[in-house]
Amino acid sequence: MLKFEDLEEKPISTQKIFDGNILHVAVDTVSLPNGNESTREYVTHLGAVGIVPVTDEGEMIIEHQFRYPLHRVITEIPAGKLDSASEEPLAAAKRELLEETGIVADEWIDLGEYHPAAAYCSEKLTLYLAKGLHMGDQKLDTDEFLNIEKVPMADVIEDVLSGKITDGKTVCAVLRAAVQLGYLVKK
Amino acid sequence: MLKFEDLEEKPISTQKIFDGNILHVAVDTVSLPNGNESTREYVTHLGAVGIVPVTDEGEMIIEHQFRYPLHRVITEIPAGKLDSASEEPLAAAKRELLEETGIVADEWIDLGEYHPAAAYCSEKLTLYLAKGLHMGDQKLDTDEFLNIEKVPMADVIEDVLSGKITDGKTVCAVLRAAVQLGYLVKK
Repeated sequence: MLKFEDLEEKPISTQKIFDGNILHVAVDTVSLPNGNESTREYVTHLGAVGIVPVTDEGEMIIEHQFRYPLHRVITEIPAGKLDSASEEPLAAAKRELLEETGIVADEWIDLGEYHPAAAYCSEKLTLYLAKGLHMGDQKLDTDEFLNIEKVPMADVIEDVLSGKITDGKTVCAVLRAAVQLGYLVKK
Repeated sequence: MLKFEDLEEKPISTQKIFDGNILHVAVDTVSLPNGNESTREYVTHLGAVGIVPVTDEGEMIIEHQFRYPLHRVITEIPAGKLDSASEEPLAAAKRELLEETGIVADEWIDLGEYHPAAAYCSEKLTLYLAKGLHMGDQKLDTDEFLNIEKVPMADVIEDVLSGKITDGKTVCAVLRAAVQLGYLVKK
Protein backbone atom coordinates (compact mmCIF):
# COMPACT_ATOMS: atom_id res chain seq x y z
CA MET A 1 0.00 0.00 0.00
CA LEU A 2 1.27 3.48 -0.94
CA LYS A 3 2.05 5.89 1.90
CA PHE A 4 0.38 9.33 1.85
CA GLU A 5 3.63 11.06 0.83
CA ASP A 6 3.93 8.64 -2.11
CA LEU A 7 0.59 9.84 -3.54
CA GLU A 8 1.77 13.39 -4.23
CA GLU A 9 1.59 14.89 -7.72
CA LYS A 10 4.15 17.65 -8.34
CA PRO A 11 3.52 20.61 -10.70
CA ILE A 12 5.88 20.95 -13.68
CA SER A 13 4.17 23.77 -15.61
CA THR A 14 0.88 25.70 -15.73
CA GLN A 15 -1.15 26.80 -18.74
CA LYS A 16 -3.80 29.43 -17.92
CA ILE A 17 -6.94 28.77 -19.95
CA PHE A 18 -9.57 31.20 -18.70
CA ASP A 19 -9.72 34.05 -16.22
CA GLY A 20 -13.42 34.77 -15.68
CA ASN A 21 -15.42 36.63 -13.07
CA ILE A 22 -16.16 33.46 -11.10
CA LEU A 23 -14.15 30.66 -12.68
CA HIS A 24 -10.44 30.52 -13.35
CA VAL A 25 -9.37 27.49 -15.37
CA ALA A 26 -5.87 26.08 -15.83
CA VAL A 27 -4.21 22.92 -17.09
CA ASP A 28 -1.05 21.84 -15.28
CA THR A 29 1.49 19.30 -16.39
CA VAL A 30 2.36 17.23 -13.32
CA SER A 31 4.82 14.57 -12.27
CA LEU A 32 3.01 11.47 -10.96
CA PRO A 33 4.13 9.23 -8.08
CA ASN A 34 5.54 6.71 -10.63
CA GLY A 35 7.56 9.45 -12.37
CA ASN A 36 5.28 9.63 -15.43
CA GLU A 37 3.88 12.95 -16.60
CA SER A 38 0.18 13.71 -16.89
CA THR A 39 -2.08 16.77 -17.06
CA ARG A 40 -4.59 18.07 -14.52
CA GLU A 41 -7.46 20.31 -15.63
CA TYR A 42 -8.82 22.37 -12.77
CA VAL A 43 -10.86 25.36 -11.69
CA THR A 44 -9.72 27.75 -9.00
CA HIS A 45 -12.40 29.50 -6.99
CA LEU A 46 -12.16 32.03 -4.13
CA GLY A 47 -14.27 29.94 -1.76
CA ALA A 48 -17.76 30.38 -0.39
CA VAL A 49 -20.06 29.96 2.59
CA GLY A 50 -23.40 28.24 3.18
CA ILE A 51 -25.84 28.81 6.04
CA VAL A 52 -28.60 26.71 7.66
CA PRO A 53 -30.87 29.34 9.28
CA VAL A 54 -33.28 27.76 11.79
CA THR A 55 -35.97 29.64 13.75
CA ASP A 56 -36.77 29.05 17.42
CA GLU A 57 -39.89 27.21 16.16
CA GLY A 58 -37.78 24.67 14.20
CA GLU A 59 -38.39 26.15 10.77
CA MET A 60 -35.63 26.54 8.19
CA ILE A 61 -35.19 29.32 5.64
CA ILE A 62 -34.55 27.81 2.19
CA GLU A 63 -34.18 29.26 -1.27
CA HIS A 64 -35.39 28.18 -4.69
CA GLN A 65 -32.99 29.42 -7.34
CA PHE A 66 -32.61 28.90 -11.09
CA ARG A 67 -29.22 27.28 -11.71
CA TYR A 68 -28.14 27.87 -15.26
CA PRO A 69 -25.83 24.81 -15.65
CA LEU A 70 -28.78 22.55 -14.71
CA HIS A 71 -31.40 24.65 -16.56
CA ARG A 72 -33.84 24.43 -13.68
CA VAL A 73 -34.83 25.74 -10.26
CA ILE A 74 -33.33 23.84 -7.33
CA THR A 75 -33.68 24.12 -3.55
CA GLU A 76 -30.67 25.36 -1.59
CA ILE A 77 -29.52 26.90 1.65
CA PRO A 78 -28.55 30.60 1.56
CA ALA A 79 -24.95 30.78 0.31
CA GLY A 80 -22.49 32.96 -1.50
CA LYS A 81 -18.92 33.54 -2.58
CA LEU A 82 -16.27 35.22 -0.48
CA ASP A 83 -15.75 38.85 -1.58
CA SER A 84 -11.98 38.32 -1.56
CA ALA A 85 -9.47 35.63 -0.62
CA SER A 86 -8.91 37.40 2.69
CA GLU A 87 -12.57 37.75 3.74
CA GLU A 88 -13.36 35.85 6.94
CA PRO A 89 -15.91 33.08 6.21
CA LEU A 90 -18.09 34.06 9.19
CA ALA A 91 -18.24 37.70 8.02
CA ALA A 92 -19.18 36.47 4.53
CA ALA A 93 -21.89 34.22 6.00
CA LYS A 94 -23.45 37.12 7.96
CA ARG A 95 -23.33 39.32 4.85
CA GLU A 96 -24.84 36.69 2.53
CA LEU A 97 -27.63 35.72 4.94
CA LEU A 98 -28.64 39.36 5.30
CA GLU A 99 -28.36 40.13 1.56
CA GLU A 100 -30.31 37.10 0.39
CA THR A 101 -32.94 36.70 3.09
CA GLY A 102 -32.95 39.93 5.12
CA ILE A 103 -32.17 37.90 8.25
CA VAL A 104 -29.74 38.64 11.09
CA ALA A 105 -28.76 35.77 13.42
CA ASP A 106 -27.60 36.07 17.05
CA GLU A 107 -25.95 32.65 17.25
CA TRP A 108 -23.55 31.10 14.73
CA ILE A 109 -22.33 27.48 14.98
CA ASP A 110 -19.54 26.24 12.71
CA LEU A 111 -20.63 23.12 10.75
CA GLY A 112 -17.22 22.49 9.21
CA GLU A 113 -15.94 22.61 5.68
CA TYR A 114 -17.06 21.11 2.40
CA HIS A 115 -15.12 20.57 -0.83
CA PRO A 116 -17.72 20.29 -3.61
CA ALA A 117 -15.55 18.76 -6.32
CA ALA A 118 -11.99 18.20 -5.12
CA ALA A 119 -11.04 16.28 -8.28
CA TYR A 120 -11.17 19.41 -10.43
CA CYS A 121 -12.00 22.46 -8.30
CA SER A 122 -10.20 24.20 -5.43
CA GLU A 123 -13.44 25.63 -3.97
CA LYS A 124 -13.96 25.24 -0.25
CA LEU A 125 -17.23 26.16 1.47
CA THR A 126 -17.46 26.87 5.19
CA LEU A 127 -20.87 25.84 6.53
CA TYR A 128 -22.77 27.40 9.44
CA LEU A 129 -25.87 26.86 11.52
CA ALA A 130 -27.54 30.21 12.31
CA LYS A 131 -29.98 30.55 15.23
CA GLY A 132 -31.72 33.39 17.07
CA LEU A 133 -33.04 34.85 13.82
CA HIS A 134 -34.60 38.29 13.40
CA MET A 135 -35.32 40.49 10.43
CA GLY A 136 -32.94 43.02 8.88
CA ASP A 137 -33.06 44.31 5.28
CA GLN A 138 -32.82 41.96 2.26
CA LYS A 139 -30.38 43.39 -0.33
CA LEU A 140 -30.11 41.02 -3.29
CA ASP A 141 -27.21 41.47 -5.72
CA THR A 142 -28.19 42.85 -9.10
CA ASP A 143 -28.91 39.84 -11.32
CA GLU A 144 -29.85 37.65 -8.34
CA PHE A 145 -33.39 36.25 -8.27
CA LEU A 146 -34.55 34.04 -5.43
CA ASN A 147 -37.71 32.56 -4.06
CA ILE A 148 -37.43 32.28 -0.27
CA GLU A 149 -39.51 29.96 1.90
CA LYS A 150 -39.81 28.94 5.56
CA VAL A 151 -40.24 25.16 5.94
CA PRO A 152 -40.22 22.80 8.95
CA MET A 153 -36.63 21.59 9.43
CA ALA A 154 -37.90 17.97 9.66
CA ASP A 155 -39.36 18.28 6.12
CA VAL A 156 -36.07 19.60 4.72
CA ILE A 157 -34.18 16.70 6.34
CA GLU A 158 -36.67 14.28 4.79
CA ASP A 159 -36.14 15.83 1.32
CA VAL A 160 -32.35 15.69 1.72
CA LEU A 161 -32.44 12.01 2.75
CA SER A 162 -34.88 10.98 0.02
CA GLY A 163 -32.77 12.66 -2.66
CA LYS A 164 -35.44 15.25 -3.52
CA ILE A 165 -32.93 17.94 -2.50
CA THR A 166 -29.69 17.26 -4.44
CA ASP A 167 -27.64 20.43 -3.94
CA GLY A 168 -24.36 19.30 -2.36
CA LYS A 169 -23.73 22.09 0.15
CA THR A 170 -27.39 21.84 1.21
CA VAL A 171 -27.25 18.07 1.79
CA CYS A 172 -24.00 18.36 3.79
CA ALA A 173 -25.00 21.37 5.87
CA VAL A 174 -28.55 20.23 6.61
CA LEU A 175 -27.47 16.74 7.76
CA ARG A 176 -24.64 18.09 9.95
CA ALA A 177 -27.12 20.62 11.41
CA ALA A 178 -29.72 17.87 11.90
CA VAL A 179 -27.32 15.97 14.16
CA GLN A 180 -26.28 19.18 15.95
CA LEU A 181 -29.94 20.03 16.68
CA GLY A 182 -31.00 16.49 17.64
CA TYR A 183 -33.22 15.72 14.63
CA LEU A 184 -30.87 12.83 13.86
CA VAL A 185 -29.45 10.84 16.74
CA LYS A 186 -26.45 8.50 16.71
CA LYS A 187 -27.25 4.89 17.63
CA MET B 1 -42.48 36.57 -4.16
CA LEU B 2 -41.33 35.37 -7.61
CA LYS B 3 -42.92 32.22 -8.99
CA PHE B 4 -40.62 29.39 -10.14
CA GLU B 5 -41.30 30.16 -13.82
CA ASP B 6 -40.30 33.77 -13.21
CA LEU B 7 -36.81 32.71 -12.08
CA GLU B 8 -35.76 31.28 -15.45
CA GLU B 9 -32.67 32.55 -17.27
CA LYS B 10 -32.82 32.10 -21.05
CA PRO B 11 -29.70 31.50 -23.21
CA ILE B 12 -28.97 34.12 -25.89
CA SER B 13 -25.54 32.95 -27.08
CA THR B 14 -22.72 30.58 -26.12
CA GLN B 15 -18.98 31.11 -26.25
CA LYS B 16 -16.95 27.89 -25.94
CA ILE B 17 -13.83 28.52 -23.86
CA PHE B 18 -12.18 25.14 -23.31
CA ASP B 19 -12.78 21.60 -24.42
CA GLY B 20 -10.60 19.42 -22.18
CA ASN B 21 -10.49 15.74 -21.32
CA ILE B 22 -12.56 16.21 -18.17
CA LEU B 23 -13.74 19.82 -18.14
CA HIS B 24 -15.62 21.72 -20.81
CA VAL B 25 -15.96 25.42 -20.08
CA ALA B 26 -18.33 27.92 -21.70
CA VAL B 27 -19.63 31.43 -21.09
CA ASP B 28 -23.24 32.08 -22.09
CA THR B 29 -24.96 35.41 -22.47
CA VAL B 30 -28.39 35.04 -20.86
CA SER B 31 -31.61 36.97 -20.52
CA LEU B 32 -32.53 37.45 -16.85
CA PRO B 33 -36.05 37.41 -15.36
CA ASN B 34 -36.05 41.25 -15.36
CA GLY B 35 -35.10 41.38 -19.07
CA ASN B 36 -31.49 42.45 -18.41
CA GLU B 37 -28.60 40.56 -19.96
CA SER B 38 -25.84 38.90 -17.96
CA THR B 39 -23.20 36.20 -18.47
CA ARG B 40 -22.96 32.75 -16.91
CA GLU B 41 -19.60 30.97 -16.70
CA TYR B 42 -20.00 27.23 -16.34
CA VAL B 43 -18.39 23.82 -16.63
CA THR B 44 -20.09 20.89 -18.30
CA HIS B 45 -19.18 17.44 -17.05
CA LEU B 46 -20.40 13.97 -18.12
CA GLY B 47 -21.52 12.99 -14.65
CA ALA B 48 -20.16 10.53 -12.12
CA VAL B 49 -20.96 7.97 -9.44
CA GLY B 50 -19.93 7.49 -5.81
CA ILE B 51 -20.20 4.32 -3.72
CA VAL B 52 -20.39 3.61 0.04
CA PRO B 53 -19.16 -0.01 0.30
CA VAL B 54 -19.99 -1.52 3.71
CA THR B 55 -19.00 -5.03 4.85
CA ASP B 56 -21.28 -7.39 6.79
CA GLU B 57 -19.16 -6.49 9.85
CA GLY B 58 -20.02 -2.77 9.56
CA GLU B 59 -16.72 -1.67 8.07
CA MET B 60 -16.49 0.80 5.19
CA ILE B 61 -13.97 0.86 2.35
CA ILE B 62 -12.52 4.36 1.99
CA GLU B 63 -9.80 5.84 -0.18
CA HIS B 64 -7.09 8.39 0.45
CA GLN B 65 -6.28 10.21 -2.75
CA PHE B 66 -4.08 13.18 -3.68
CA ARG B 67 -6.33 15.88 -5.12
CA TYR B 68 -4.31 18.25 -7.22
CA PRO B 69 -6.58 21.35 -6.91
CA LEU B 70 -6.25 21.11 -3.09
CA HIS B 71 -2.58 20.02 -3.16
CA ARG B 72 -3.14 17.36 -0.55
CA VAL B 73 -4.44 13.88 0.21
CA ILE B 74 -8.11 13.72 1.21
CA THR B 75 -10.42 10.88 2.29
CA GLU B 76 -13.18 9.87 -0.12
CA ILE B 77 -15.58 7.13 -1.06
CA PRO B 78 -14.77 5.16 -4.23
CA ALA B 79 -16.05 7.18 -7.18
CA GLY B 80 -15.51 7.85 -10.84
CA LYS B 81 -16.75 9.49 -14.00
CA LEU B 82 -19.23 7.95 -16.39
CA ASP B 83 -17.47 6.53 -19.47
CA SER B 84 -20.00 8.23 -21.75
CA ALA B 85 -23.19 10.28 -21.45
CA SER B 86 -25.20 7.12 -22.12
CA GLU B 87 -23.53 4.86 -19.51
CA GLU B 88 -25.96 3.69 -16.84
CA PRO B 89 -24.88 5.05 -13.43
CA LEU B 90 -25.26 1.63 -11.76
CA ALA B 91 -23.03 -0.01 -14.38
CA ALA B 92 -20.46 2.77 -13.85
CA ALA B 93 -20.63 2.27 -10.08
CA LYS B 94 -19.98 -1.48 -10.39
CA ARG B 95 -17.09 -0.81 -12.77
CA GLU B 96 -15.50 1.90 -10.60
CA LEU B 97 -15.81 -0.09 -7.36
CA LEU B 98 -14.09 -3.06 -8.98
CA GLU B 99 -11.41 -0.96 -10.70
CA GLU B 100 -10.48 1.07 -7.63
CA THR B 101 -10.89 -1.44 -4.80
CA GLY B 102 -11.11 -4.87 -6.40
CA ILE B 103 -14.51 -5.37 -4.76
CA VAL B 104 -17.71 -6.85 -6.18
CA ALA B 105 -21.00 -6.18 -4.33
CA ASP B 106 -24.12 -8.39 -4.36
CA GLU B 107 -26.53 -5.68 -3.20
CA TRP B 108 -26.83 -2.11 -4.50
CA ILE B 109 -29.06 0.52 -2.89
CA ASP B 110 -29.68 3.86 -4.61
CA LEU B 111 -28.79 6.78 -2.30
CA GLY B 112 -30.06 9.47 -4.68
CA GLU B 113 -28.35 12.21 -6.60
CA TYR B 114 -25.91 14.95 -5.70
CA HIS B 115 -25.07 18.17 -7.56
CA PRO B 116 -21.63 19.23 -6.30
CA ALA B 117 -21.65 22.83 -7.53
CA ALA B 118 -24.89 23.71 -9.33
CA ALA B 119 -23.97 27.41 -9.55
CA TYR B 120 -21.25 26.75 -12.12
CA CYS B 121 -21.10 23.04 -13.00
CA SER B 122 -23.57 20.65 -14.63
CA GLU B 123 -22.07 17.58 -12.94
CA LYS B 124 -24.49 15.16 -11.32
CA LEU B 125 -23.33 12.23 -9.19
CA THR B 126 -25.49 9.21 -8.50
CA LEU B 127 -24.70 7.73 -5.08
CA TYR B 128 -24.98 4.09 -4.00
CA LEU B 129 -24.71 1.94 -0.93
CA ALA B 130 -23.00 -1.38 -1.78
CA LYS B 131 -23.41 -4.43 0.49
CA GLY B 132 -22.58 -8.14 0.30
CA LEU B 133 -18.95 -7.40 -0.63
CA HIS B 134 -16.45 -9.93 -1.96
CA MET B 135 -13.11 -9.65 -3.70
CA GLY B 136 -12.60 -9.38 -7.47
CA ASP B 137 -9.54 -7.88 -9.20
CA GLN B 138 -8.46 -4.25 -8.63
CA LYS B 139 -7.65 -2.58 -11.97
CA LEU B 140 -6.62 1.03 -11.38
CA ASP B 141 -6.57 3.41 -14.34
CA THR B 142 -3.09 4.40 -15.47
CA ASP B 143 -2.21 7.58 -13.57
CA GLU B 144 -4.51 6.69 -10.66
CA PHE B 145 -2.89 6.24 -7.25
CA LEU B 146 -4.96 5.37 -4.22
CA ASN B 147 -4.50 4.27 -0.67
CA ILE B 148 -7.40 2.03 0.35
CA GLU B 149 -8.47 1.34 3.93
CA LYS B 150 -11.19 -0.54 5.80
CA VAL B 151 -12.57 1.51 8.72
CA PRO B 152 -15.55 1.05 11.09
CA MET B 153 -18.55 2.83 9.52
CA ALA B 154 -19.25 4.57 12.85
CA ASP B 155 -15.78 6.19 12.73
CA VAL B 156 -16.34 7.46 9.18
CA ILE B 157 -19.69 8.96 10.23
CA GLU B 158 -17.96 10.67 13.16
CA ASP B 159 -15.31 12.17 10.82
CA VAL B 160 -17.99 13.36 8.38
CA LEU B 161 -19.99 15.04 11.16
CA SER B 162 -16.96 16.65 12.82
CA GLY B 163 -15.77 18.12 9.52
CA LYS B 164 -12.59 16.01 9.41
CA ILE B 165 -13.87 14.50 6.16
CA THR B 166 -14.76 17.40 3.83
CA ASP B 167 -15.23 15.76 0.42
CA GLY B 168 -18.76 16.65 -0.69
CA LYS B 169 -19.87 13.39 -2.31
CA THR B 170 -18.45 11.51 0.69
CA VAL B 171 -20.32 13.62 3.26
CA CYS B 172 -23.61 13.30 1.34
CA ALA B 173 -23.33 9.60 0.59
CA VAL B 174 -22.07 8.53 4.03
CA LEU B 175 -24.82 10.44 5.90
CA ARG B 176 -27.59 9.15 3.63
CA ALA B 177 -26.15 5.61 4.06
CA ALA B 178 -25.89 6.13 7.84
CA VAL B 179 -29.65 6.74 8.04
CA GLN B 180 -30.35 3.85 5.65
CA LEU B 181 -28.29 1.47 7.83
CA GLY B 182 -29.62 2.75 11.16
CA TYR B 183 -26.41 4.44 12.42
CA LEU B 184 -28.38 7.70 12.52
CA VAL B 185 -32.01 7.58 13.63
CA LYS B 186 -34.70 10.23 13.07
CA LYS B 187 -36.16 11.67 16.30
